[in-house]
Amino acid sequence: MVYDLIILGGGPAGYLAGERAGAAGFKTLVIEERFLGGVCLNEGCIPSKTLLHSAKIYDYARFSEKYGVTAENVKYDHAQVIKRKNKVVKTLVGGINSKLKALKVDVANATGKILGRTSEGFQVAAGGETYTGRRLLIATGSSAIIPPIPGTKEGFEKGFVLTNREILDLKEVPESLVVIGGGVVGLEMASYFNSAGSKVTVIEMLDHIAGQTDREISSILLKNYQKKGVTFHLSSRVTEIKDDGVVFEADGKQEFVPADKVLMSVGRRPNTIGVGLETIGVELERGAVKVDAYGQTNVPGVYAAGDVNGCSMLAHTAYREAEVCVNNMLGKRDIMRYDAIPAVIYTNPEVAGVGETEESCAAKGIDYEVVNLSMRYSGRYVAENEGGDGICKVLINKVYRNVIGVHMIGNPASEIIYGAAMLIESEMRLEDIKELVFPHPTVAEIIREAIFEF
Amino acid sequence: MVYDLIILGGGPAGYLAGERAGAAGFKTLVIEERFLGGVCLNEGCIPSKTLLHSAKIYDYARFSEKYGVTAENVKYDHAQVIKRKNKVVKTLVGGINSKLKALKVDVANATGKILGRTSEGFQVAAGGETYTGRRLLIATGSSAIIPPIPGTKEGFEKGFVLTNREILDLKEVPESLVVIGGGVVGLEMASYFNSAGSKVTVIEMLDHIAGQTDREISSILLKNYQKKGVTFHLSSRVTEIKDDGVVFEADGKQEFVPADKVLMSVGRRPNTIGVGLETIGVELERGAVKVDAYGQTNVPGVYAAGDVNGCSMLAHTAYREAEVCVNNMLGKRDIMRYDAIPAVIYTNPEVAGVGETEESCAAKGIDYEVVNLSMRYSGRYVAENEGGDGICKVLINKVYRNVIGVHMIGNPASEIIYGAAMLIESEMRLEDIKELVFPHPTVAEIIREAIFEF
Repeated sequence: MVYDLIILGGGPAGYLAGERAGAAGFKTLVIEERFLGGVCLNEGCIPSKTLLHSAKIYDYARFSEKYGVTAENVKYDHAQVIKRKNKVVKTLVGGINSKLKALKVDVANATGKILGRTSEGFQVAAGGETYTGRRLLIATGSSAIIPPIPGTKEGFEKGFVLTNREILDLKEVPESLVVIGGGVVGLEMASYFNSAGSKVTVIEMLDHIAGQTDREISSILLKNYQKKGVTFHLSSRVTEIKDDGVVFEADGKQEFVPADKVLMSVGRRPNTIGVGLETIGVELERGAVKVDAYGQTNVPGVYAAGDVNGCSMLAHTAYREAEVCVNNMLGKRDIMRYDAIPAVIYTNPEVAGVGETEESCAAKGIDYEVVNLSMRYSGRYVAENEGGDGICKVLINKVYRNVIGVHMIGNPASEIIYGAAMLIESEMRLEDIKELVFPHPTVAEIIREAIFEF
Repeated sequence: MVYDLIILGGGPAGYLAGERAGAAGFKTLVIEERFLGGVCLNEGCIPSKTLLHSAKIYDYARFSEKYGVTAENVKYDHAQVIKRKNKVVKTLVGGINSKLKALKVDVANATGKILGRTSEGFQVAAGGETYTGRRLLIATGSSAIIPPIPGTKEGFEKGFVLTNREILDLKEVPESLVVIGGGVVGLEMASYFNSAGSKVTVIEMLDHIAGQTDREISSILLKNYQKKGVTFHLSSRVTEIKDDGVVFEADGKQEFVPADKVLMSVGRRPNTIGVGLETIGVELERGAVKVDAYGQTNVPGVYAAGDVNGCSMLAHTAYREAEVCVNNMLGKRDIMRYDAIPAVIYTNPEVAGVGETEESCAAKGIDYEVVNLSMRYSGRYVAENEGGDGICKVLINKVYRNVIGVHMIGNPASEIIYGAAMLIESEMRLEDIKELVFPHPTVAEIIREAIFEF
């Protein structure tokens, strides 16, 4: 039998492509060596959100005297939280399984490896079988980078150094945790273990945390977490992992932070090794599979979506890329756009943004206008955030006067930002946006408030 | 001096019209007899949300063993919550005051009464002064209906029967509370006092709660609150308020519920009495000021916005109506549309909806298609809502295939629904909506999930 489509990898890009292709009538095979749902569902987005939700409740129970609520002997059962996390993940993985089954998509739980091409199609080995597919989707995802810092490999083998995968299954809360890398993963885990009781230190190479996030917002986030007791070492380079802590250099001086556990969260690398890409001549670029706007690689019929293409490395980007790939396979022309992809950091307060920042506008030479409003212009924010210092920034193109960026810090920014993405994507004029009715009182209204400041 | 615009009432419609008119350079006077911000800010939306937030935290602190958090001796200080509520309200009223001041809008803290019209303009008396305005905006709001049920007036005078105004300032949590009217106000207060410790009974005339809300959603809400210990008497008519409780009729039988306090929340009536509308011949219709699509009454130059026009009685509708009025006064043609106005019930779980429901489609004969999804299709919802039974319904017009309604129960629906309103208002095609990227994992993604089911 020849499959219409063989998908390597069952993460967000892979399983969603499977669903869409299956729904469209393609005879489809998804090959996944670990678990359906990939890193996102099993070792990333979903587990971390489950943990962070429990931590938030714990913080509410401990620190809500200002809201009129007091409690004694508040206890946090990390082991129980991990147990619940596993249940949540199992439920959701089960959901994907059922959906693929219902759509008659085959799933092979094995490592897939491309063998080459015959006149019938692409040959892929998995679990001792060889499958043939007319088309391929490379969706092998990414892995945490283990940098070549002395002591890292040894620390990793001993279980002293962890990645996103291992840290989400820690049986006990470490007394002290050193987080190397203050990006999204590092900050979310710093947030969780700070609430759960660890003494947390974040070491970051850059002079700011949270990567590409609006600089003012990342600095508000930093201050919030300093207040909560997290220590940050910025502009600091880790030089060695010892048995009992981390050595780093800052300002030319060497320092040492003791640690019970170390989280390595300096970035992720596309999984291209061992996939057999070379057997069919798939081109790579800076370690990632190179794709065009349709998601296709240099080899006709071979597409790539998700982290492996190195474009955005977010689950929701992967979803959309997968859809673009499948649509183009089906002959429906569809183009991937990256200008309205939201990014969220699920700290407390949450950070969310979409589109251009002031920094990216400056770098690209975009003539922009910005409104920067305190979240306290939202009545609901004031009602629910005693002493909150959130802000919302809206950027418009000065010439065309359309919204090109929205960035916020304050809960629940994560759930609000999709509407901002819609504003950017739909290219509504400011005048049209002003006619939209936002429910009152909501934090989301802050966007409307900002729009009226232009 | 002759004002360009005199506004009667400083609630959401009045103060916002003041801001917009002031910003546009109109010499503007706002007349408010109580407090700027009106019912919404002082006795409605904002105070109730402040209370409900504290109650939610209290519930989290008590009932989160399933999330791994336990606490002992959890206490709720209602008096402290009321104090904080007053602080929140004061902050926000202060904000409106400052903004009007900055825009050079005059404010008269007095009862305004229209006296008539001269060649110079409309004459309005307030606080012993007579003001003249070229235009008027009637934004006098609404008041809770006190129905002519025997014992109600006496109960109200004794402080036994309360409206939304008095209940938000109760010093103590009543042991038992009977809520007459299971609409938005009644349900939010039932939710709050149930959490705060009252034995709550809701008596509703109709066979369902939550008014125009999607019937399946209101029934899920009902079940949630029954589980929490609230008693509901549906299809029940209150016949008498006694000194110690409420008498009602159901199924032809008379019943009695004892009560320490009674909340009367059977609806609101536009404030048209004593405003002097008759002196200039402003036409009423079913007790409300009649307006056209531009917000203008039958008298040229006299507009009405907010609850007083009886159209929607929501603060955010009032905002938009006020803007429509001011835009038309300024010569910018603007039309009020009511098809994409979100409605929210801030219970726990929250309920939010916008546009047509299955019921309204049936009544209007709209040929629709509906997708009804469990919220458990959202990974974040599963992560944050142990045992949650939320749903999301998306309705499209079967002929034009555009979204005409979105309805959901599940947190934080209130913050998500504005984007659904945007989908309706912008008349995006399903195919375009499918290209939007929603951040993962969010509850908001449920909308995207539903769209892909069509």
